[in-house]
Amino acid sequence: MAIRSARTLWAGGLQDGSGQVELVSSGLGKFDVSWPRRTADTAEGTSPEELIAAAHSSCYSMALSAELANVGGTTESLDVTADVTLGPDPAGGFRISKIKLTVRAVASGIDAEGFYTAATAAKNGCPVSKALAGVAEVELDAELI
Amino acid sequence: MAIRSARTLWAGGLQDGSGQVELVSSGLGKFDVSWPRRTADTAEGTSPEELIAAAHSSCYSMALSAELANVGGTTESLDVTADVTLGPDPAGGFRISKIKLTVRAVASGIDAEGFYTAATAAKNGCPVSKALAGVAEVELDAELI
Repeated sequence: MAIRSARTLWAGGLQDGSGQVELVSSGLGKFDVSWPRRTADTAEGTSPEELIAAAHSSCYSMALSAELANVGGTTESLDVTADVTLGPDPAGGFRISKIKLTVRAVASGIDAEGFYTAATAAKNGCPVSKALAGVAEVELDAELI
Repeated sequence: MAIRSARTLWAGGLQDGSGQVELVSSGLGKFDVSWPRRTADTAEGTSPEELIAAAHSSCYSMALSAELANVGGTTESLDVTADVTLGPDPAGGFRISKIKLTVRAVASGIDAEGFYTAATAAKNGCPVSKALAGVAEVELDAELI
């Protein structure tokens, strides 16, 4: 069991306030967050959605390297992008309505079918995917290149 | 609708490989990740769990500032820590087994009961909480100070 922690210090209301989120366990940084920045068309500062994207892309990468080994492949390199969409929730408020995973892999000892099996198993089995069970749509665009 | 992105470049297998996760939308940084570091007792480098903790603590802060206003309160400051536990999944592999949210709030125009109502509503309604529906246990320790 491993426990990892982060902390947000916030001042003010939702629209006029702002905060700073700190990566406590690693000590790697503190980043500004605010609601107007979070919902703007263009990112300035990080946001919960960008942090979820980072968690998912890194977890998926580890899971895929493991799943490729399970089907007899050897991972050379993976390029995994996660795009996380925040939108209105039909049930009220906002929700993370979609995550798109775009995966490009260089691997040996495996064919396209085996790769697709591994890519799908990683999508379903990585701890972050399982935790994110409340996301309505997770799209996987995976190719062996 | 706002879309935020992050990317992981990975090389090698699960045990011997490593990667770098990049906050693409904000351009705020690139951080090393690996499976041995992710599961070690002490953090070195970030991990999917630390990034989930950052996403959850920042999202919860915004949601609580909004919920406090809904019950007639005014938020002065919030201190929100998320501790995210990775452990074995009884169903196989690993899972995020628990998230603990520790919240200390300074707010006016509200009593302890109203605060608890708002703190619980934020736990249930913040977009990251809703997305993380697959986490078995989310513990809330919230106090108005």
